[in-house]
Amino acid sequence: METMRIAIVAPPWFAVPPVGYGGIELVVGYLADGLARRGHQVTLFAAGGSRTEARLVATFAEPPSALLGDPAVEARHILAAYDHWREFDIIHDHTFLGPVTGAALPVPLVHTLHGPVTDANRDLIAALGRRAHLVAISHHQRSTLPAGTRAAVIHNGIDPAAFPFSAEPGDYLLFCGRINPEKGPVEAIEIARRAGLPLLMVVKINERLEHEYWEAEVRPRLRGLDVEVKQQPPTEEKLAAYRGALATLFPIQWPEPFGLVLIESMAAGTPVIAFPRGSVPEVVLDGVTGFHCRDLDDAAEACWRARELDRRECRRRVERHFSASLNVLRHEQLYRAILASDGRGEPAPTLPLALDGITAPGRS
Amino acid sequence: METMRIAIVAPPWFAVPPVGYGGIELVVGYLADGLARRGHQVTLFAAGGSRTEARLVATFAEPPSALLGDPAVEARHILAAYDHWREFDIIHDHTFLGPVTGAALPVPLVHTLHGPVTDANRDLIAALGRRAHLVAISHHQRSTLPAGTRAAVIHNGIDPAAFPFSAEPGDYLLFCGRINPEKGPVEAIEIARRAGLPLLMVVKINERLEHEYWEAEVRPRLRGLDVEVKQQPPTEEKLAAYRGALATLFPIQWPEPFGLVLIESMAAGTPVIAFPRGSVPEVVLDGVTGFHCRDLDDAAEACWRARELDRRECRRRVERHFSASLNVLRHEQLYRAILASDGRGEPAPTLPLALDGITAPGRS
Repeated sequence: METMRIAIVAPPWFAVPPVGYGGIELVVGYLADGLARRGHQVTLFAAGGSRTEARLVATFAEPPSALLGDPAVEARHILAAYDHWREFDIIHDHTFLGPVTGAALPVPLVHTLHGPVTDANRDLIAALGRRAHLVAISHHQRSTLPAGTRAAVIHNGIDPAAFPFSAEPGDYLLFCGRINPEKGPVEAIEIARRAGLPLLMVVKINERLEHEYWEAEVRPRLRGLDVEVKQQPPTEEKLAAYRGALATLFPIQWPEPFGLVLIESMAAGTPVIAFPRGSVPEVVLDGVTGFHCRDLDDAAEACWRARELDRRECRRRVERHFSASLNVLRHEQLYRAILASDGRGEPAPTLPLALDGITAPGRS
Repeated sequence: METMRIAIVAPPWFAVPPVGYGGIELVVGYLADGLARRGHQVTLFAAGGSRTEARLVATFAEPPSALLGDPAVEARHILAAYDHWREFDIIHDHTFLGPVTGAALPVPLVHTLHGPVTDANRDLIAALGRRAHLVAISHHQRSTLPAGTRAAVIHNGIDPAAFPFSAEPGDYLLFCGRINPEKGPVEAIEIARRAGLPLLMVVKINERLEHEYWEAEVRPRLRGLDVEVKQQPPTEEKLAAYRGALATLFPIQWPEPFGLVLIESMAAGTPVIAFPRGSVPEVVLDGVTGFHCRDLDDAAEACWRARELDRRECRRRVERHFSASLNVLRHEQLYRAILASDGRGEPAPTLPLALDGITAPGRS
């Protein structure tokens, strides 16, 4: 198979891979490394401090994390990255603004939708879909695209080998995520209270709204409960938290586009007790790698049934369907399909059925 | 002289020309019309409802004014405009995000800086300056550019014939502008109070911060004073307001990058009493077309001296130095200079001295 010259444009906000928080940067790092290992000429455009097996072009000396989301900062990153567009057969952009530039260039452009489709970005996504090859990160996310907008579905992947596994259920519940109403930290506390089990919270609290939500809604509810809180602990501690838990709580209040926590938990052997919104039904198999729950009581009751699940099934599901290596193969196949077609004129080809449908809801 | 194929990318927020508020859209409209009248093939990318002598490509059916500044909206506008880049010899972009895309394309790009240089955009402007031909709208604005960043200076222009003139001084003071601390509405009220003269305020109050500033700081100060307020009146009323005033107050609290109000007022014959920050010293000639004032008392005193100024000098200054037709000629000359050079590789050429320096501070 021929070598491709591939540009991967990461968001600039965190190093690739991230030191702490940074889900997009994590999966982008796996992708760049995996493609490089498969012999492609891969260039990663990312902030300084990134470590990669691809060629790194650092657009900032340090990740501008404090300015997260500032369009002027993202614009500088894009400007520097797209200076090099002539050097590539294909560009895969994971930023918000970059695809606007990429779509104007005579080189095939792939754009992964890492966030939810909202009223604010729906029209932009439709316009991008007419000019670039979109990748959705779940079947559910794809189902929310504007009418007529096509996208390949490629689930996020991680390296299961990086997650220490335990076949024995632990004795506490885990919540892992941003302190944000969407992620349901308040609901997680309530589930733990009703289940009468200890709760470990591994949390990110650094943006203003996160601080406000923590102080106003979350912290007051911890009084009198058996809850331990770790703010962005070192990787080793986070891995131990996953491995040692009885179950991970995922009582989301929004249509999660993918949910890396789901597969990180399952990789460690820990099943997930989740509200089945967004991508959850296609990632967590109800009754096998976790439980889909109706409400808080249902979830509290499920905590006690989590011991009955075979933790090996959790691990196996990640190895089979949500590994970084599968994610890399799918992207390689998508790029080849695009380059084999005319490259530009046509909207995103769907992946061959066998690939595209492999982890559709209801199939394991 | 050869015809050029010119793309003018306007911001999407208001029609070109604007119905009410919209300074950038006003000068962009003059530029597109003027270049078209001079025989160039001009395409204007702007929101629907625009009227132009150029070819119009409307990127939105209606101007998305309610979403002013939303990057996803501007991104859609840019995406649609840059579909056409192959059709042009040169692209002149007046938006915030568009130059990021334009800079990646193998077509010469001109970008006008319509706002102040700030800590938030300084690095982006430096990066754009290495890839595009920048235009500053005043010598002062150019002096604030990052070290090593070159730009041509082309002052904004208007059509003086559109402004009814009066050689006779009126009997009230005028404030015209957004209700924003930068523009000094509170200071204008205080100047009128100290001068003991009536004040007419022609104002824009529609963004949230404008409403808040109006209610908290401006409205309470109107009590007991002879002040009339008109919110975004029809054009005829605004023109009458300029023409009938004794002087226009411009007590700015920021480094104004250009200040269209200055030349609109002078076109009507009305001198300007201003704090000499930003572009003011190079636009208003102290003691001739207005007064540069140190403080509120100095400005109040200057109101009474405004009667002594020859209003014909105000009009003449606009006709000579700040007309739309001069602005069009300067742009045409800049485009030709760029196309005569290699077009891309070099940073912005400066204009020939005779053109570039014509309205430098201290020269009339």
